[in-house]
Order: sequence, then structure tokens, then C-alpha cells
Amino acid sequence: MSILISQQYAIGVDIGGTNTKFGLVNHRGDISYHGSIPTHKHERIDDFIEDLYQALLPAMTDVGGTQFIRGIGIGAPNGNIYKGTIEYAPNLKWKGIIPVAEMIGKRFGLPARLTNDANAAAVGEMTYGAAKGMKDFIMITLGTGVGSGIVANGQLIYGHDGFAGELGHTIILPDGRLHPGTGHKGSLEAYASATGVARTAVEFLETRTDVQSSMRNYPLDQIDSRIVYECAMAGDPLAQEVYDFTGKILGLAFANFVMFSSPEAIVLFGGMSKAGDLILKPTRESMERNLLPIFQNKVKIIFSELNEADAAILGASALVWESRID
Amino acid sequence: MSILISQQYAIGVDIGGTNTKFGLVNHRGDISYHGSIPTHKHERIDDFIEDLYQALLPAMTDVGGTQFIRGIGIGAPNGNIYKGTIEYAPNLKWKGIIPVAEMIGKRFGLPARLTNDANAAAVGEMTYGAAKGMKDFIMITLGTGVGSGIVANGQLIYGHDGFAGELGHTIILPDGRLHPGTGHKGSLEAYASATGVARTAVEFLETRTDVQSSMRNYPLDQIDSRIVYECAMAGDPLAQEVYDFTGKILGLAFANFVMFSSPEAIVLFGGMSKAGDLILKPTRESMERNLLPIFQNKVKIIFSELNEADAAILGASALVWESRID
Repeated sequence: MSILISQQYAIGVDIGGTNTKFGLVNHRGDISYHGSIPTHKHERIDDFIEDLYQALLPAMTDVGGTQFIRGIGIGAPNGNIYKGTIEYAPNLKWKGIIPVAEMIGKRFGLPARLTNDANAAAVGEMTYGAAKGMKDFIMITLGTGVGSGIVANGQLIYGHDGFAGELGHTIILPDGRLHPGTGHKGSLEAYASATGVARTAVEFLETRTDVQSSMRNYPLDQIDSRIVYECAMAGDPLAQEVYDFTGKILGLAFANFVMFSSPEAIVLFGGMSKAGDLILKPTRESMERNLLPIFQNKVKIIFSELNEADAAILGASALVWESRID
Repeated sequence: MSILISQQYAIGVDIGGTNTKFGLVNHRGDISYHGSIPTHKHERIDDFIEDLYQALLPAMTDVGGTQFIRGIGIGAPNGNIYKGTIEYAPNLKWKGIIPVAEMIGKRFGLPARLTNDANAAAVGEMTYGAAKGMKDFIMITLGTGVGSGIVANGQLIYGHDGFAGELGHTIILPDGRLHPGTGHKGSLEAYASATGVARTAVEFLETRTDVQSSMRNYPLDQIDSRIVYECAMAGDPLAQEVYDFTGKILGLAFANFVMFSSPEAIVLFGGMSKAGDLILKPTRESMERNLLPIFQNKVKIIFSELNEADAAILGASALVWESRID
């Protein structure tokens, strides 16, 4: 493999509960090497880092050694950008506060930076994706939960403690639906996550027994967001109404976010965003309706341009270009 | 008057609907000269600027001329920081989009920068007041309306169009109280402004006719926030309940703001903040209750340290130190 001397790579590492994925990424967002090791098999963080190093060594050697690598970006649940730590992550075996960036940086002999998954996704979108060139945008991940990363003045907003951007937990309907994970009522995540959509569908099916729906072909306890999506796409009015209801709440939340940071765009990412216009149309209508006139018809709602399989690695790697770690 | 050669001044100009106040301010926030001209008497913006120049000339001469002045900061309703314009300000006679910063800068031969009043207040608080040294805080003005200025990563958040930070118009109680000015229902300003507090008091008095209250000594159409405050301070339970109700909504809004930008502090400014613990206690309780655990017991709610009479001039002048206009 021939190397351009000037070419610099970043390593992107995405630590998930089950697997840790990684890759070598260039400035354009091309991933030249993909790899993966199991996360949960390593009881000790040191063993995990040693395995990660050994797994990446061939790739690093292949591009000419660490002098061609600018640094390592790490996306992790409960990642704290300021300290480079993973703190009390419920889905990881390593308990307490772990100085992961420092440990990885030391083993690799490279600068390392760590943040949570949602912030990494926002940096990835800004560096390689739909938010390229934008200085003000909000990234919303609509998956099992609702995550967010906020960019203002061209910088991620981390807040004084590194935990900014928990928009999924903002309260949109006070005294609304209980979020079983947090105990709060009416948070965005209780409605606009995949879990929330399934819950809305079940509520509709239970309370509106007079309405026919193809969703009734499934047992209530098996209704998930995929079934709602497929029924809605096949023209089922009640399933479509689930998206209208979800979009109404999501759009109201978006209006509040816009009146906070006035972004150029809101970028949607994650499984739920695959519903396309089903979710986009009611969301946009509700957002516009709840905005002050000076904000109306200005804010784009767009979909992520990152391949979902690669996004986490890209986002993590982008931390290296974004940062001042070197 | 003796001058230290190294001393630099900033001119702060606060354009209000009725009067325009100004002063010469040093790095420590000492105002060495106060002045005022009527705003509304000037039909033409050129005449206004000429009068402003003539009014400031003696002060500028007194400190040794414009070479001792770093620049001019201007706070104005509907001020746009990016363009230096005042845009469609309902309370000013000059209609449309006026390039005020450019015009003032030209007449004075000094760099000039303009923003809206709430943002100017936040910069003032960061430069001279309670938020000195903070990189992440939110300033909330509780006056006739509810204004806000947001600082993250040590910078004001302006958004892509310069209009960020309209937190008073975020919807806190969907389908709640109508805001007559915007037509929206349930916005923060409909409850947490002086107008909102008076409205809550009237609603309580009208709907809870069985409850005694010293507020009943006043005709309903004369109830204002001052009367509610005085009755509450004198121990009237219903008036105190008005503050509890207001604080509950304000705290809920604060929780959402904290989960957005994770500020070190929320700084309260404006007439309503004079209510002190009456409003602070229920606000703090409600905020903490609605926060995720990772945010709890971290965010200070504090009062502005700027003298209200000087705050607008200080805030405007602080734009000069904050900016890169020179």
C-alpha cells in the first residue's frame, strides 16, 4: 500500500456495551480499516486496552506507523470530554470513574480524546456529513433513546461539567407519560424514541378499540417501532397517527431548542429517522407552529448523511480533527 | 483630570424606546461619565446619532480623545449582532432595518458593535458582575417580559442568524396560558414575567373566592406584580402561592435549559428577581426535581451583581472588551 507522506489518519474507536468498533479514517471520512473486539469479555480495562492495541497494530503499521496518525478519538457511553473519563456507565463492566482517554493515549503513544456517543455523532456530521461547514446545528439521535449533540459558534457545547446536550430528557409535556428509566414525566425520550413510538401505538390500540388497524394483527406486547413503521407505510391510518402524534411532540421540542440556540439545521440520526416524511412532516409543522415569527421558515430539518454502520467510528475519529489535543 | 496612558475606555450606549443612556466605562466596570438623550424625539436616525455624538463629545475630550477609547458597544431592542442592525423594533420610530452600528461607528470614528439588550446584559455580567470568570451560564431577565442571554464555552450564543436566546418564548406548558403578544400558549413569559405574575394573582383571586387575601383590597384590574410582592412579603398566603406557582414553572423551564447547555449558574436579573427567596426557593426546588441526577445540586441560581440603573450601559460597554472588533 502506497502512502502519501502528507496524509494523516485519525483512529476512531466506538466503545459499545457488547462490541468495540474501530477504524483508521482520513480527513475526507474514508475509513481505510475496520475492526472490532468484544467489549464485555474484558473484566479489566487494562486487558481491554491491550487487546485494542494489538487489534489496531497491523493497521497502524500498514499506514507507516504512529507518525502518520494524528490521534485517537473515542466515543463511549457516559464519556466526559473534559476528563477523558467514562463515568458510571450502566452497560459497561468497568465500574466507577475510568480515565480511559489517558490510558489509551499512553498505550498507543498518541493523543487521545473521548466524549459520549451523541456528541461524537455531532462532530462526525460536522466534519464529514450533512452539517459540513455549519457553525450552528443540533444533532438529534432518534433510536432506542433520544440523544443529542449541540454545536454553536462552530464548537460542541459541553457545559461546565461536560454533560450538556441531554435534550432527550427535557420535559415537553409536564405530568405526561412516565419515563421508566428516569422517573420523570413527559420527557421527550418518553415519546420520540423507538420505545416511545411503540408505547404510543399500544396506548392507541388499547384506548381506541373501535378503530380498525393492521397493527391489531400483532399481540400488544410484541408491538415495536418496526411494526408501527411497516403498518404506517402500508397505509394504516392509526399507525400513521402514531407518527403524527410523535411528530407533534418532537416539533414542539424542536421549537424550544431553536429558540435556545437558533441553529441553521437540526440533523436527525438513528433508526427512527428512517421513517422519513412520516415523522418529518408532522415534526416540521409542529415546530413552525410553535416558533416566534423571526425563527419561522429558516431552520432546516435534515437527515444525517453518515452511513449508520460507520457513523460511530467517524464521529469518534472526528474528535481528533476538531480538537486541540496535539 | 489626570489620565493613565494605558487606560482604555469603552463607550456603552443603551438605546431604549424613550431614552438613550450612555457612559464611559473602564475595564473594571467603573462608569466615569453618565449621560442621556431622548430617543423618541428623533424622527430621523441621523439626527439621533448626531445628538448622541454631541452629547458624548465632552466626555471623550475629557479622557484625552478617541485614542483612549477602544470602541462603542450598543444595546438595542431587536439588535442583530452579526449585521449591527436594529431590525423592525416595534418601540422605536426608525422603521425597517437600520445599520446603526455602522452609522455610529462612522460618526465617532470608532469600532462599534451592537446586540440586543438581553445579550448585552449577559456580557456585562460576565465582564463585571456575578458571572465573572464563568464560561457557561445563562442570564435570565425577569421584567415586564422574560429575556435571556446564553454563554457557552465563554462565548455568547447568537445562533446562525443572531437571534438565539429567546428563552422567554419557549413553551413550558403546552396549551397553557395565552401570550397576547405572540399568540402562543404556555410560554415561559406568559407566567414568569411581571405581567404573568399579575395575571396569575388575578386568576387565583377570581377562581378561589373562598380564600381570604390582602390582595382583595385592590381592584382586580389594578393588581400588578408590586402588589403581589408586597402582600406576599407581608405574609399573605395566596400571594405567596402566586410565587410558588411561578417558581414551579420557572424551575421546570430552568431544568430544560440546564439539560441543554449545562451552565455553571443561572443569573437572575430584572424587577422580578427582587422578590428574592419568594421566587428563588420554589424555582430551585422545581428545577432540581426535574433534572436528571447527573445535573442535580450543581447549578447555582444567583442574582445579578450589576446595579440595575447601570446594567444596560455596562452590558453594552462590555461588548467592546468581549469582541474582536479592533
